[in-house]
Amino acid sequence: MRSDTRHFLCEISDGIARVALDRPDRKNPLTFDSYAELRDWFRDLVYSDDVKAVIFASNGGNFSSGGDVHDIIGPLTRMNMKELLAFTRMTGDLVKAMVNCGKPIIAAVDGVCVGAGAIIAMASDLRIATPEAKTAFLFTRVGLAGCDMGACAILPRIIGQGRAAELLYTGRSMSAEEGERWGFFNRIVPGEDLETAARDLARRLVQGPNFGHMMTKTMLAQEWSMSIEQAIEAEAQAQAICMQTGDFERAYKAFVAREKPVFEGD
Amino acid sequence: MRSDTRHFLCEISDGIARVALDRPDRKNPLTFDSYAELRDWFRDLVYSDDVKAVIFASNGGNFSSGGDVHDIIGPLTRMNMKELLAFTRMTGDLVKAMVNCGKPIIAAVDGVCVGAGAIIAMASDLRIATPEAKTAFLFTRVGLAGCDMGACAILPRIIGQGRAAELLYTGRSMSAEEGERWGFFNRIVPGEDLETAARDLARRLVQGPNFGHMMTKTMLAQEWSMSIEQAIEAEAQAQAICMQTGDFERAYKAFVAREKPVFEGD
Amino acid sequence: MRSDTRHFLCEISDGIARVALDRPDRKNPLTFDSYAELRDWFRDLVYSDDVKAVIFASNGGNFSSGGDVHDIIGPLTRMNMKELLAFTRMTGDLVKAMVNCGKPIIAAVDGVCVGAGAIIAMASDLRIATPEAKTAFLFTRVGLAGCDMGACAILPRIIGQGRAAELLYTGRSMSAEEGERWGFFNRIVPGEDLETAARDLARRLVQGPNFGHMMTKTMLAQEWSMSIEQAIEAEAQAQAICMQTGDFERAYKAFVAREKPVFEGD
Repeated sequence: MRSDTRHFLCEISDGIARVALDRPDRKNPLTFDSYAELRDWFRDLVYSDDVKAVIFASNGGNFSSGGDVHDIIGPLTRMNMKELLAFTRMTGDLVKAMVNCGKPIIAAVDGVCVGAGAIIAMASDLRIATPEAKTAFLFTRVGLAGCDMGACAILPRIIGQGRAAELLYTGRSMSAEEGERWGFFNRIVPGEDLETAARDLARRLVQGPNFGHMMTKTMLAQEWSMSIEQAIEAEAQAQAICMQTGDFERAYKAFVAREKPVFEGD
Repeated sequence: MRSDTRHFLCEISDGIARVALDRPDRKNPLTFDSYAELRDWFRDLVYSDDVKAVIFASNGGNFSSGGDVHDIIGPLTRMNMKELLAFTRMTGDLVKAMVNCGKPIIAAVDGVCVGAGAIIAMASDLRIATPEAKTAFLFTRVGLAGCDMGACAILPRIIGQGRAAELLYTGRSMSAEEGERWGFFNRIVPGEDLETAARDLARRLVQGPNFGHMMTKTMLAQEWSMSIEQAIEAEAQAQAICMQTGDFERAYKAFVAREKPVFEGD
Repeated sequence: MRSDTRHFLCEISDGIARVALDRPDRKNPLTFDSYAELRDWFRDLVYSDDVKAVIFASNGGNFSSGGDVHDIIGPLTRMNMKELLAFTRMTGDLVKAMVNCGKPIIAAVDGVCVGAGAIIAMASDLRIATPEAKTAFLFTRVGLAGCDMGACAILPRIIGQGRAAELLYTGRSMSAEEGERWGFFNRIVPGEDLETAARDLARRLVQGPNFGHMMTKTMLAQEWSMSIEQAIEAEAQAQAICMQTGDFERAYKAFVAREKPVFEGD
């Protein structure tokens, strides 16, 4: 998996990829280039075995200020419909790539987390925040609708339909405390502990079973709009596949030997 | 948009329609007539540009006691299947009309909010309550099932499947405090502040972007049972449409000029 | 309804079936036999009129330790794909049978509630717990995926997508307090009150309307992946059916006579 990215930071070590936007002086806005490169990077991740978990980190005290007003919103106001749809599909493709990458993504959210930044946090699997995190789906503030990059489908499933409606209509900021209480954030930690907490959780996930985690992630998305009956049959098939992995046998043998299992990902 | 309604109160000013049931001495029950007129009124609302947000208000300290026992339940016990289905479809059509009206609806809930009254609150986009609000989906109390006007689909998405199951099986009252904690109510305010709080929120929504709000409302319903991939493509299209509105350009220009945007709804 | 089960405890009285796993010395693991017999028992329940509510009880201070490591996991590691799929379908069929049995199921959860035990609690309609309840979807701990018996579909609808993801990826234990706060448990009661609380709730449900409760349960599952419009039409039909039951008329007459209705289930 390549870490020589040009439009965002990327470090890979011990099976963990740490990515972060890199314009901390402007609270890490997204640009056309970083959108496209992130999309491509997450698409490549499907085929990688050396990255087993991703941390989408904050930088300089902020997560992301979303689509840059000058670099993105300005040009968008001058585009025709074909160009606009190409842009909204590209941003949507980033969310699709994150959902389909096969590795758990942990968003480590500090400070400003708004617009497309809030979407990236939402599209992650797990979310840790500092008390300073301010998350806003502020699309209506720039004259648009709340339906951006899957927000009207995904956000209600995380925090409930009524709370999502409020955030999406008003664009108001959700505090870290609200985010934890509503199930958006899995945990709040002090700012100085954010990186450590995210890394500890990532390390735990990297220990595997990574084939299992890939299947968990796949099925959480796959069963989104299935009936209960379809979902149960889909899981019967998915789990039967997992029961033929070596990791399942390794876990059993370790249990019998009263040892901690060491998973190998196949 | 007409405000000369016969079976419920309706006042329209400053882009806000305030509707309320009007039999406060009996805690505002619904009747065949008010059901039908509300359905027709919300259906007309799709085509209205002068109403941009709706407040469904309480009256005399109560929201609604639901279908009137004497005027509705009595006659229903004497109807044949064709007539019964015509009735349940009419009540369901009220919820469909509210969901499809294109304008955010704020329920301002005080006191009794039960049966079809609880459904009207549930089918609204946002809900503000007083500490005295008592919300009960009490259909089982009158010998029926909890599946009324969409409750088994919509309530679980607002407060979670387990809590919804309890309310729908037992018909028990949900307190205002529970409602806020569970995500049913967006906010609790003292009784004397209910109208002001609802009006402040409505006023904020009326400032727009109203085309955006219409699209947010549309997509929150439209994506209900889509897959994640379908939802993301649907939002790419919906948001591309919004990017060709004048309001998007107005927001951009206001930002550049360091002004507050004034939206015009197109 | 038969109560002479061989692989789990079953007592039936006053319309309430109390079932419990019965190896308290090993915290009530499931075996191939108890899985199959539970599946068959819940399938038969559809056709029973003498059982109107089910309590899935704890035994000896624990709910269930899930699939037994020696009796189930060991043999699974030696099975071929055909046999594995037969197993995962059998366990999934237990959840399907619980969802489709037509009677509300109350899980009364004390102590250990993990793996397939946590799934049984999840697949119940209502959940009461003691402060000692420790619920873990620990499939990843044994090298598998979190997608077991419908967990990736059902758990997110109960506690939200983000919290479900954390529990399913990490396999960590959810405390009783978290479970109540997140909507998994409807209520926490002291250990000595668990049986009484579950029985009181069951007794209340047994009083009916039982045809209505059957329809509530049916529609909560049936509308799982419908659109809002489809769900509202489905409920119009389902509730019209309920309006032709005697229980609806009994409720009306009792109301007029200022009496408490006595439901008869038809």
